[in-house]
Amino acid sequence: MKPKSKNIFWEHGEVGRIDRERTNGQRGATIWFTGLSGSGKSTLARQLESVLFGRGFRSYILDGDNVRHGLNRDLGFSPEDRTENIRRIGEVARLFTDAGTIAITAFISPYRADRDMVRALMRKGDFIEVFVDCALEICESRDPKGLYKKARAGTIPEFTGISAPYEVPLSAELVIRTDEMSPAECIERLLNYLETNGYFSPTSDLPASV
Amino acid sequence: MKPKSKNIFWEHGEVGRIDRERTNGQRGATIWFTGLSGSGKSTLARQLESVLFGRGFRSYILDGDNVRHGLNRDLGFSPEDRTENIRRIGEVARLFTDAGTIAITAFISPYRADRDMVRALMRKGDFIEVFVDCALEICESRDPKGLYKKARAGTIPEFTGISAPYEVPLSAELVIRTDEMSPAECIERLLNYLETNGYFSPTSDLPASV
Repeated sequence: MKPKSKNIFWEHGEVGRIDRERTNGQRGATIWFTGLSGSGKSTLARQLESVLFGRGFRSYILDGDNVRHGLNRDLGFSPEDRTENIRRIGEVARLFTDAGTIAITAFISPYRADRDMVRALMRKGDFIEVFVDCALEICESRDPKGLYKKARAGTIPEFTGISAPYEVPLSAELVIRTDEMSPAECIERLLNYLETNGYFSPTSDLPASV
Repeated sequence: MKPKSKNIFWEHGEVGRIDRERTNGQRGATIWFTGLSGSGKSTLARQLESVLFGRGFRSYILDGDNVRHGLNRDLGFSPEDRTENIRRIGEVARLFTDAGTIAITAFISPYRADRDMVRALMRKGDFIEVFVDCALEICESRDPKGLYKKARAGTIPEFTGISAPYEVPLSAELVIRTDEMSPAECIERLLNYLETNGYFSPTSDLPASV
C-alpha cells in the first residue's frame, strides 16, 4: 500500500470530449451520408476519410462492411430491424463523436424518421446529414454489386428506389449531386462545409471536461 | 464534370488501421476490465485514460454511463440480454480498436463465455483481459452506489457476488489487485504491460492499409 509516485496522472482530472477535441485539433461530429444504392456514399466516405487523414484529422467510417457483419449481425431486414440497425449505428457514431472523432456513416438509411431519430440522439451541430443525390437511372446504370438487376428481377424484395421508398431529406445540412459533380468537386464541397462551420477546430462553446 | 484539382486526396489510397495507428503513434487495442461491482473498474479506467491522455495516446472508455443508456438501452437483465450486452460492447470496442484507439471497457462481465466470445471477435493481441481482483468484503464495504446493501436485502435479484456467480478469469492478460495495491501501483502495472507488449507503438506485423 505504498504509493510510489503521485505525478503519473494527467494533471487536469478526468478527460472529456473537449480535451480530446483539443488534442485532435478538430470537433467530434457525425457525417451521415444517405442516398440510393449506387449513389456514391461509400466512395465519397472513403475519399473524404482519405483527405481528412492527409490533413491530420481523425475520422472513422461505419459502413456495411464493419457493422452489418459485426455489431448488427443479429438484425434482418424487417421494418423493426432496419430501424434498430440505424439506431445502433447512430449510437456508435455518437460514441465516436464523443471521442473527438469524425464518424462517417455510409448507409442508404431511406427513412426520414430513422435519420431524425439519430439526429435527436446528438447535440446540435454534431449531426451532419448529407444527401448523396443521384438520379435513379444513373445509380441503376452503375449497379456495382448487381443489386438493381436482382431487384428488377424480383430476386431482392423491397429494394430502395425500386420496390421500397427512399424518403428524400427535407433539411439535410448538405446535398451532394454525384451525377452532376466530379468526385473532387464533391469532396471540396464537403471540406468547405466542415471548414466554414468550424469542424476543423475544437468545440468552443462547451465547458471543459464535459 | 470538370475536375478542379486532382491533388486534394491523400496520396496513399485508402486509409487503414495501420495508417491510423501510425498517426496516433500507438496500437489499437481493447483493455477489458472485469471484476465485481466496487472492485475499482471504473476508477481504474478513468485513471488509465487520464494517464494515457497525458502521454498523448488516444483512448476511449465504454462503460455503463455511455452504453447502457445509449446503444444497449433496449436490453434488460435476462441471461440472453446480458450476453447481448457484452457482445455489442465487444463489437464497439473492436471498432475503436480498428480506429487505432485504445478502447477501455468497464463492465462486471461475470461470465467467462461472454468474455471469451469478445476475445474471439478480436485479433490476437487486440484483447487485453484485465481481472480487477478485489475481495468481496472490500467491494461490499466500499459499496459506492449502495448496491450491495440492496442485494443483501433482496431488492436486487441476481447480483454478482451475492446471488449470482462471478466466474474468475483463468487466463487474463493481467490481474490487478485493487485491495492490495495503491491506485498509482495499479496504473503503473497497466502501463508497464502496455509498454512491454508494444502497445505504445503502431502494429508492426500488419500489412499497410488492412
